[in-house]
Amino acid sequence: LSFNIAVIAGDGIGKEVMPEGLRVLDAAAQRFGIALHYKHIEWSSCDYYAAHGKMMPDDWKAQLAGVDAIYFGAVGWPDAVPDHISLWGSILKFRREFDQYINLRPARLFEGVSCPLANRKPGDIDFMIVRENTEGEYSAVGGIMYEGTEREVVMQQSVFSRHGTDRLLKFAFELARKRERKHLTVATKSNGIAVSMPWWDGRAAEIAAGYPDVRWDKQHIDILSARFVLQPQRFDVVAASNLFGDILSDLGPACTGTLGLAPSANLNPERSFPSLFEPVHGSAPDIYGRNIANPIGMIWSGALMLDFIDQGGTVGRQAHDAILAAIEQVLAEGPRTPDLGGSASTTEMGKAIAAAVERG
Amino acid sequence: LSFNIAVIAGDGIGKEVMPEGLRVLDAAAQRFGIALHYKHIEWSSCDYYAAHGKMMPDDWKAQLAGVDAIYFGAVGWPDAVPDHISLWGSILKFRREFDQYINLRPARLFEGVSCPLANRKPGDIDFMIVRENTEGEYSAVGGIMYEGTEREVVMQQSVFSRHGTDRLLKFAFELARKRERKHLTVATKSNGIAVSMPWWDGRAAEIAAGYPDVRWDKQHIDILSARFVLQPQRFDVVAASNLFGDILSDLGPACTGTLGLAPSANLNPERSFPSLFEPVHGSAPDIYGRNIANPIGMIWSGALMLDFIDQGGTVGRQAHDAILAAIEQVLAEGPRTPDLGGSASTTEMGKAIAAAVERG
Ligand SMILES: CC(C)[C@H](C(=O)O)[C@@H](O)C(=O)O
Ligand SMILES: CC(C)[C@H](C(=O)O)[C@@H](O)C(=O)O
Repeated sequence: LSFNIAVIAGDGIGKEVMPEGLRVLDAAAQRFGIALHYKHIEWSSCDYYAAHGKMMPDDWKAQLAGVDAIYFGAVGWPDAVPDHISLWGSILKFRREFDQYINLRPARLFEGVSCPLANRKPGDIDFMIVRENTEGEYSAVGGIMYEGTEREVVMQQSVFSRHGTDRLLKFAFELARKRERKHLTVATKSNGIAVSMPWWDGRAAEIAAGYPDVRWDKQHIDILSARFVLQPQRFDVVAASNLFGDILSDLGPACTGTLGLAPSANLNPERSFPSLFEPVHGSAPDIYGRNIANPIGMIWSGALMLDFIDQGGTVGRQAHDAILAAIEQVLAEGPRTPDLGGSASTTEMGKAIAAAVERG
Repeated sequence: LSFNIAVIAGDGIGKEVMPEGLRVLDAAAQRFGIALHYKHIEWSSCDYYAAHGKMMPDDWKAQLAGVDAIYFGAVGWPDAVPDHISLWGSILKFRREFDQYINLRPARLFEGVSCPLANRKPGDIDFMIVRENTEGEYSAVGGIMYEGTEREVVMQQSVFSRHGTDRLLKFAFELARKRERKHLTVATKSNGIAVSMPWWDGRAAEIAAGYPDVRWDKQHIDILSARFVLQPQRFDVVAASNLFGDILSDLGPACTGTLGLAPSANLNPERSFPSLFEPVHGSAPDIYGRNIANPIGMIWSGALMLDFIDQGGTVGRQAHDAILAAIEQVLAEGPRTPDLGGSASTTEMGKAIAAAVERG
């Protein structure tokens, strides 16, 4: 097995967690006989923007021709580049132009991690968020009337297509069908958002008819968020629009102790374009430079990547499982970064996980 | 002092908690020498809809002429009337047509309530959500192209005015200024929602310049939700758009143990129209009919109402404080409804609070 991986560390702690992600990938590759060829990329960072006035070179797609996946740290440095410019010029551009329409984000409570929710133990929180990743509320469509005056009115368009919604819901139902509990929750807000969301509910009902073996319900995003805190054991798979999925996929991991653990897979399931794997956390300017960021979100994302690029093969799955087992072991026994209540560095934690992968 | 109150119990548990709200209001009115004249209203309920095919009579505004406030239970019965019809035809209509542009929602952890967050004690969670209540993401503007075909595309407009945004932000800054910690968090999502939210950030920065004595920051809604769980003590006043405020005002109370406690004040601060006071919870068809709903959200909303309608007078404030003290006492000592781990009925809890108000 041999894969080409584009490596984009990006900004801030992306640069600190990426070496640990690669360290663990290398350990897994070695153990399972996978050849990983890295292509290190400097663009898609605010440093690149400072030098070039844009986030990416014009030939960015050509530069990524032939890669099997993109391994991505974090992007954004708001003091230098407004977020909506850095992000729409990089991560949000990848998601759209590579049609990575599924953003898969697990939330799981591990042994050894102190849970911010009272009386919860591992097993109580173990769900998957399936977030739409290319349309919906994230849009640059709209504009301002009477700009600069007291009468100013801003219109922001959310855009949902049947194509985009149905494929998201189908993916979520398929995933739920494969899991033990076979339960899907669909996030909505059809009582307040009066055009798109009642329509979204209708799509969910229609797609659900094809999955009689999956139990499903829909919940308004307000009460759904409350239930992540009050009854997290209720959730198995959660399907959500771009914005709702964004919120739930920070809230879910928060309920498991720290965002530093959370991975994500930005998938183009048809493999027409490379998929992208990144931690849920951002570039975290407030802690950058101290080598204290938790590298697990990055490392776990690498595990998801190996599994996905092997296309259902056993080697990718084994490598994934070995990395997950190593993460579990290190979380249970230490070392731990400060967000987990420890005092280990990013590097120490990465090395410990890589060693656990090697030991097997 | 004498006030006219429109009483709308509405649907489901609205009908069960309303009598307890009135019981406690009566106790406070008696103790503080306030005359409350109730006008009981049957419309704005799904029962009314079943009989009349609409949520309200055409002369609903005339029927409310001269009322000082609306005391509101809950509305909605999704099995009979789709939510977006029942809600847009009642509660959302009041908010808009009576220009109740502030939705004020406290979240507070009480002694005697078991907190779903580990190791939190009363004092750790005590903040106010100031939610925009008339525009933004809640809109019926938009439509469907290529309807019923594979190419279907849905457009949903969010609409933000400078008028609506500035008055919300000013109210929030004013409120923060009056509180001990003088801190305001402004919810945003300007990194993903590329037209309205960067504009919203700009309004916040401009309004903030007028409040140099208030410390403020802006936080993206995803991480902000996560921090409600991880660091609730960080929050004092939170200003949010209609949708973000909706989410945060379920999540905040969830972090304090139960949505059953949470009150809300839908305010028209200029008093050109009546303001409306209602619990945050809905009609809860799943528990209706068993007399187990927690009446505190309703009762606390009544306290907010007395304070507001007395327009800064001391009697209204005293009545408010007496009801709050009674709530605190009953939460600490019991009886408690099932959502609080007890087995008391709605009625028992209401009676206990009314008795505590009478005792003083
Ligand atoms: C019932 C619904 C329309 C309403 C809202 O979303 O505003 C409710 O959730 C609330 O928070 O008052
Ligand atoms: C950085 C931002 C645009 C992004 C998003 O909102 O999608 C991030 O929060 C995420 O969840 O990946």
